[in-house]
Amino acid sequence: MKGLKALKYTDGGVTAPSGFSASGVHCGVKRGSSLLKLDLALIFSETECTAAGVFTRNSVKAAPVLLDMDRLKSGKARAIIANSGNANACAPGAYEAAELMACAAASSLGISPSSVLVASTGVIGQALNTEAIISGIEPLVKNLGKNSSDAADAIMTTDTFRKETAAEFSLSGGTARIGAICKGSGMIHPNMGTLLCFITTDAAISADMLSRALRVAVNASFNRVSVDGDTSTNDSCIILASGLCGSPEITAEDDDYKIFVGALTQVCVRLARMIAGDGEGATHLITCRVSGASTDKDAETLAMSVIKSPLTKAAIFGADANVGRVLCAIGYSGAFLRPDMVDIIFTSENGSVIVCEKGLCLAFDETLAKNVLEAWEVVIDIRAGDGPGSCECWGCDLTYDYVRINGDYRS
Amino acid sequence: MKGLKALKYTDGGVTAPSGFSASGVHCGVKRGSSLLKLDLALIFSETECTAAGVFTRNSVKAAPVLLDMDRLKSGKARAIIANSGNANACAPGAYEAAELMACAAASSLGISPSSVLVASTGVIGQALNTEAIISGIEPLVKNLGKNSSDAADAIMTTDTFRKETAAEFSLSGGTARIGAICKGSGMIHPNMGTLLCFITTDAAISADMLSRALRVAVNASFNRVSVDGDTSTNDSCIILASGLCGSPEITAEDDDYKIFVGALTQVCVRLARMIAGDGEGATHLITCRVSGASTDKDAETLAMSVIKSPLTKAAIFGADANVGRVLCAIGYSGAFLRPDMVDIIFTSENGSVIVCEKGLCLAFDETLAKNVLEAWEVVIDIRAGDGPGSCECWGCDLTYDYVRINGDYRS
Repeated sequence: MKGLKALKYTDGGVTAPSGFSASGVHCGVKRGSSLLKLDLALIFSETECTAAGVFTRNSVKAAPVLLDMDRLKSGKARAIIANSGNANACAPGAYEAAELMACAAASSLGISPSSVLVASTGVIGQALNTEAIISGIEPLVKNLGKNSSDAADAIMTTDTFRKETAAEFSLSGGTARIGAICKGSGMIHPNMGTLLCFITTDAAISADMLSRALRVAVNASFNRVSVDGDTSTNDSCIILASGLCGSPEITAEDDDYKIFVGALTQVCVRLARMIAGDGEGATHLITCRVSGASTDKDAETLAMSVIKSPLTKAAIFGADANVGRVLCAIGYSGAFLRPDMVDIIFTSENGSVIVCEKGLCLAFDETLAKNVLEAWEVVIDIRAGDGPGSCECWGCDLTYDYVRINGDYRS
Repeated sequence: MKGLKALKYTDGGVTAPSGFSASGVHCGVKRGSSLLKLDLALIFSETECTAAGVFTRNSVKAAPVLLDMDRLKSGKARAIIANSGNANACAPGAYEAAELMACAAASSLGISPSSVLVASTGVIGQALNTEAIISGIEPLVKNLGKNSSDAADAIMTTDTFRKETAAEFSLSGGTARIGAICKGSGMIHPNMGTLLCFITTDAAISADMLSRALRVAVNASFNRVSVDGDTSTNDSCIILASGLCGSPEITAEDDDYKIFVGALTQVCVRLARMIAGDGEGATHLITCRVSGASTDKDAETLAMSVIKSPLTKAAIFGADANVGRVLCAIGYSGAFLRPDMVDIIFTSENGSVIVCEKGLCLAFDETLAKNVLEAWEVVIDIRAGDGPGSCECWGCDLTYDYVRINGDYRS
């Protein structure tokens, strides 16, 4: 990314930027567990923010998505309330339930309902327990503070670890911060690549430029992740900018904008890799890097085809250097390809092994290859030809646990 | 299908039509098994046939596919030799090995090498053991006879049962027959929907019309099957027509052509369903029927999206009536959809249960639903709206065994 000179990751999540507080409680939407799992999250800004969102392209959209798309036309917001355990989608009264969530949070916070955004994740088609949500709002508001972990925990479904990150970087007028929490796991696929992601920043940026920056960042991060090729009804990535960092407002594609986009993209890539590596049942993070393609778009098509291939994903699970699976996947991708120019290399922290050269599979050291593939992150490097196009995408292996988790998700 | 009045399934496979014999032997391409698994198949016609083929659209094509595409330009052939255990793809000398297979079979049969087609299935990227193949050709030719089971067995890889079928039907000048063997299992996806399928008929039909008929039949059958979304380098569907049934040659889109296309399509659908139900690790055949879509094409897009959705496939494995997965899959299919007009019904031999009406998930009897989904074949019926488009597609569930089989396929 041009512009951005340095970015420093820091502790914390959405509360790292100035002006934001967060909380998470158990309200009772998630049931049947002996532990009282957190299931309701709140992010609050002490000042009005510019705001933008990117939402699922699924034509079946959950009620909170429809509500947020409408509210974000104003380019402003001050709070996000989100629940896990129920997607509030395709159920009678879903839109009213989403409005009620926003309204109850707004009254307790003393702000306008129209400045509250809503998100939900969980089972589709069951009525949301709004009584539970309403009962949770008082403790939620009372617990608002500078720790964002509870909020991050409260949006998890089958995620195995909390996902939050924060970073700081320099704009022309001072140090700015970006913080984020997200949840992923199943149903992760481009457009969008995450179920829920909430980002805060204290950079000052107009709603238009914020929306543009978010689209660029999401395209280079969440839209290059695939866990299973399924796109959810609820995918939402929302950003709030408080403007409190002291730097002048970004209102055009100037140097500060380029720096901001660079920082936002890096933060989103970091989250995207967490999501890929925590795909349901995943035991490996798979990174596919394509270079030498005709165009960047072709490189992305090739890399996504590999990342999505169930046969490749199962082979990586078995640490099986089955290069035929990779060749197949790039062959059917639809991107332009000269098979006789393809080199493929498997790389990890344990070493690297070239398994295909100029389209022909090579004999290779099976023990070394197995060792390379047993690392947590496996990189599939593909030199597709001598073109200028390149891209990097992320996914995970296909495992017994993916099947177990999704064979009986509702119960 | 207009034209076809009646079709009767009969015993046998590729040898049911007049003029064809077949055989299968163990030559040694498949190794490491205590049982001597059959791995080399031959189909032979006593007269010259018109011939046509449909092949993988993967841009990485195995050598036998390239050879056959070239040879079928003549529209004629007399024999097909096929091995399992090695795909003869992406390995040095692969094209020469395919030519050698054809040549050796031709000399033993006493026919021209250019009239022999070749097919391979198995591991990609390893050199084909041509010595083993050549050693198998003499017994293969000696064993030629009217039983097609050995040939059907010899093309199996991870298939759990032999796939052969035959049918007879009336053309204007007499009774004609179609016979077929095929193998499927993993890597099954449209374009093509089968790894290997060999069809014979004693109808008399020009090469042009045969090619046209095969394309129609494949589009309505194998191209509507998905096991895992992966398309192989080797997919081949080849048909030979001996013309011995006594009916006049079909040379235009006349009544006999319509009858022939109808019969060929039915046979291919029967094979496609066998392939879907025998997908790697499958415990359920899933049929998705869409009606009321804007167009047939949209109906196909909706049905294929459901059939391909890993989350839907895993839910059916768990007999979990997770209608949200189905709604999601049709939502992201890309086809035109009015979510508020969608009805969804799960049906099987155990009963049926409506789970979604006008886009809203219904409360339903969970015990009944579980019972419906525990049948071998589960039908997902989707009324997408009030349009004229409809389509039926086939797939299978996603199971632990799919992961096991593909986690270590090569060893």
